[in-house]
Amino acid sequence: MSVTETAYQPTERTVPTRSRDRAAYDRELVHAILDGAYVCHLGFVRDGAPVVLPTLYGRVGERLYVHGSTGSRPLRMAGQADPGLPVCLTVTHVDGLVLARSAFHHSINYRSVVVHGVAHQVTDPAEKRTALDALVDHVVPGRSADSRPANAKELAATAVLRLDLDEVSAKLRTGGPNDDPEDLGLPHWTGVVPVRPTYGTPVPASDLEPSIPVPGYLTAL
Amino acid sequence: MSVTETAYQPTERTVPTRSRDRAAYDRELVHAILDGAYVCHLGFVRDGAPVVLPTLYGRVGERLYVHGSTGSRPLRMAGQADPGLPVCLTVTHVDGLVLARSAFHHSINYRSVVVHGVAHQVTDPAEKRTALDALVDHVVPGRSADSRPANAKELAATAVLRLDLDEVSAKLRTGGPNDDPEDLGLPHWTGVVPVRPTYGTPVPASDLEPSIPVPGYLTAL
Repeated sequence: MSVTETAYQPTERTVPTRSRDRAAYDRELVHAILDGAYVCHLGFVRDGAPVVLPTLYGRVGERLYVHGSTGSRPLRMAGQADPGLPVCLTVTHVDGLVLARSAFHHSINYRSVVVHGVAHQVTDPAEKRTALDALVDHVVPGRSADSRPANAKELAATAVLRLDLDEVSAKLRTGGPNDDPEDLGLPHWTGVVPVRPTYGTPVPASDLEPSIPVPGYLTAL
Repeated sequence: MSVTETAYQPTERTVPTRSRDRAAYDRELVHAILDGAYVCHLGFVRDGAPVVLPTLYGRVGERLYVHGSTGSRPLRMAGQADPGLPVCLTVTHVDGLVLARSAFHHSINYRSVVVHGVAHQVTDPAEKRTALDALVDHVVPGRSADSRPANAKELAATAVLRLDLDEVSAKLRTGGPNDDPEDLGLPHWTGVVPVRPTYGTPVPASDLEPSIPVPGYLTAL
């Protein structure tokens, strides 16, 4: 699928049937939404039925990576399948609860990315290592350099799937409620409640050597 | 599928191929995980390929409800499909980032529920109204009673899907990192960074009548 410099090419399945004004294909926006999260929901088809599992992911340029045990279902399926495993990978941020005066116009402010494509197992050892570093650094930027890298046994036990960013769309809702004009006089509070994930104080493992301080990349979260 | 009083019956597809100790079927636990969130990721199959979309949901007893425009794809598909639309509905809470000394043992503390089943369009008007109230109250408990209920036109424009809680599993990870014994002397910080969603101060709509105060069910969030 061809892409321009700055945007993904819309396709039949990345153009929504409704709320088209909320859809976006801008590459920088898609990257920002992806880079601001680390858990995706990965969908695949098993025996004709859909399966959706939460999993970590990482991004390296125009490629996403997910990983798992070589024994896990989607990773086995992608390894067996030729030419790969059709997947849908979705990332969602909730930014606010939108309370309108009417129940009907209640909504959520959100930013999401949906990636359609075919996932392939990564076999190149260098790409696998890059992908695993990206997965760790997606959760905690800077962490991969401050942990023991995977050894040969661990690499062999870990399967990595690659999904190209090609058929991609973002969807967003921002702003306040959109009540109907005839509801503006109703006596209900209306507005937006902001929502965001927050990090608590890091809790050291019970066996942490006490002289090891909390690293700067954690206090920066 | 038969269920006991207190637990869902495991099935071939709700028993994971790995990390079986993290799987749970307790009904109260499943309900608690479902009731603590309001966005799910709904998977279905379209033209043989998986689609995963974020959407709101509500729970009434052993039934989940999702809604959307009567023009949206999954809702049209469920209306057309006989005997319904096979779906997988997944809800995930992230509770912590687990930083081990080895990259390999990095993990996430989480609680998730995966529901497999066939979704059906709700046609009974009373059930539809109950479902829509549940959807609003799932996001903000108490809100449906403090907003204008849907009128006939709005009800007609809204499709509601029902999914029975029948083939259901929870999956959880809790606790600290599980480093290998030979890594315990490595000089890397190790522990857990708690994560939770937080609500900001409610932002009134620009056209809110100033005498209407922030309701108690919002300050209680």
